[in-house]
Amino acid sequence: MVFESKIRTIQWVDNVSRMVDQTKVPYEYVMVDIKTGDEMYDAIKTMIVRGAPAIGVSAAHGVVLYAQELMNKGLSREEFISQLTQKAEYLKTSRPTAVNLMWGVDRQLEILHNSTSDIKGMVEELKQNGIKMENDDIAINKSIGEYGADVVPKGATILTHCNAGALATVGYGTALGVVRSAYARDNSIQVFSDETRPRQQGSRITTFELKMDGIPVTMITDGMCSYFMKKGMIDMVVVGADRIAANGDTANKIGTYTVAIAAKYHNIPFYIAAPLSTIDTSIKSGEEIPIEERSHDEVTTINGKLVCAEGVNVINPGFDVTPHELITGIITEVGILKPDYNESIKNAFANERKPLLI
Amino acid sequence: MVFESKIRTIQWVDNVSRMVDQTKVPYEYVMVDIKTGDEMYDAIKTMIVRGAPAIGVSAAHGVVLYAQELMNKGLSREEFISQLTQKAEYLKTSRPTAVNLMWGVDRQLEILHNSTSDIKGMVEELKQNGIKMENDDIAINKSIGEYGADVVPKGATILTHCNAGALATVGYGTALGVVRSAYARDNSIQVFSDETRPRQQGSRITTFELKMDGIPVTMITDGMCSYFMKKGMIDMVVVGADRIAANGDTANKIGTYTVAIAAKYHNIPFYIAAPLSTIDTSIKSGEEIPIEERSHDEVTTINGKLVCAEGVNVINPGFDVTPHELITGIITEVGILKPDYNESIKNAFANERKPLLI
Repeated sequence: MVFESKIRTIQWVDNVSRMVDQTKVPYEYVMVDIKTGDEMYDAIKTMIVRGAPAIGVSAAHGVVLYAQELMNKGLSREEFISQLTQKAEYLKTSRPTAVNLMWGVDRQLEILHNSTSDIKGMVEELKQNGIKMENDDIAINKSIGEYGADVVPKGATILTHCNAGALATVGYGTALGVVRSAYARDNSIQVFSDETRPRQQGSRITTFELKMDGIPVTMITDGMCSYFMKKGMIDMVVVGADRIAANGDTANKIGTYTVAIAAKYHNIPFYIAAPLSTIDTSIKSGEEIPIEERSHDEVTTINGKLVCAEGVNVINPGFDVTPHELITGIITEVGILKPDYNESIKNAFANERKPLLI
Repeated sequence: MVFESKIRTIQWVDNVSRMVDQTKVPYEYVMVDIKTGDEMYDAIKTMIVRGAPAIGVSAAHGVVLYAQELMNKGLSREEFISQLTQKAEYLKTSRPTAVNLMWGVDRQLEILHNSTSDIKGMVEELKQNGIKMENDDIAINKSIGEYGADVVPKGATILTHCNAGALATVGYGTALGVVRSAYARDNSIQVFSDETRPRQQGSRITTFELKMDGIPVTMITDGMCSYFMKKGMIDMVVVGADRIAANGDTANKIGTYTVAIAAKYHNIPFYIAAPLSTIDTSIKSGEEIPIEERSHDEVTTINGKLVCAEGVNVINPGFDVTPHELITGIITEVGILKPDYNESIKNAFANERKPLLI
């Protein structure tokens, strides 16, 4: 039973890409129209749009915007393809670490290079593909939500970490997609949201989007999770993922692993919610996932103000890896994968329902 | 081997109580002279001084300050005792929840009511007792430090949570007393300090005081502890305590329990460092320790700025209880207590070395 969310992070409207300006959340909720390819480059770079799936679709829209600009320049078909390819490659450099960015651009380049249409026809094909990628992302999230809702107990309190919500995707969310679908079936469920230091995506974005959709949410600091687990106030944990290895080991926002250990200690189910596209079968285990070391300012300052001794040493890993043995299940668009993950992941790819996959 | 710390949080000097103004840490490190009893009331209330042992000694100094003021008013001996007792009782109301505050005042009232001296003599006795309480606090901390240093491995990285340091006591610290004594023996050790949201005592105070003493410290956010434990970068955990039950269950700053679970999962020793005065043998287990629910602003705002959706629900327990089965040992001034704690705590009180106890 799908929930009707008020949030649509990205939408192609009247030949522009309209998106929520996430640099202003939770202080303001405003839409911004991205009208040119260069504007999309800046929107991704400055994190007006964030979250891997959302960035992937934004990149695809960016290619359409560049195509619209080049269409009226009197170029030959060959010149058009060549110049658009250059612009698309440039778009990939806006945030070089987000793999969905390259993926979104490359899907459009495939359309471009395989097309037999004239320029106008190619622009139309790119636009239609951009819209399709939007819709596919939502459809996949809703499917994740429905499978996930099946394992949410009646009246459950669901703990989540970071933001794997509508605002990290086109519009429904992965972990928060599970929450939305569960809430549509049973409005007595509620969410506890970890703050998620250092960048506070939990307190800034998750609380905001759930409040906007009228789903009850309580904010806690990262160290508190065990306290509430021991009191019997948490029934399950659901989080997103940045990369899942072939054995089920899952990289996600720093702090996820600590929550997973606490859940195990209290015998509370711990689920990952992510599309199959997040699973990297070329990697055997989490040991092979590189962990990005991020800016120390994220730890030492909050809202621009220092919160520790000046010049103190800091380490700021952006992600951690939760080993597969702590994961109860991986909720995907084709069902919930269970241990042994090597086996269930292999089967998921073998049996994947093509129409749902982008 | 005792470490020479640069930090002396409180000291009786030239008939005033000189203390570090902790409302300014880590942005400034300035001493303030508290010259009257009423000024001490305000210093405790506004948290110029914080940390239970530090508050206890400050309260004792406050009684001396009031005594000095009353001494020159031409009162009879009886009037002096009566008026000073009233002032002392008033001092207790500056922060009604801190039990050391009442304890510090009551120790002075005992001196006052048992004295056979004249007014001038009584003021001198109160002053000498205030100075003795300072020195006792440091002596106890140094003893904790020495016992604790015995179990710190060569070149260890010690993780701590919150601030159980020089700035929470008169001048050496409990958990950070262990760090100081260990560092005096082996300057290849280092500290990892949890930020300790919501009030950030770890990032604001622990990093500051260790940096001041030249002891290497790295700041991490609360969710990161497991990441570093898994990488083999943490050798032991040492934290302070707010109240220890007869069975060893320990209440400490919120987030401590999460760290203890993570330490257990990675087979890393987890120690409490606290004076015997923190052990409440009237309480059988942690279940009986009341947990204070603190202001929601501590969670929803940082440096006065909102960090979540407006009006979002919050729960803010100030403390959690770490069950005794997660505690490797309790480091006290009479030695390290080990499980079974019911037994070892009973023995510690039976054999306590009187001269060290205040």
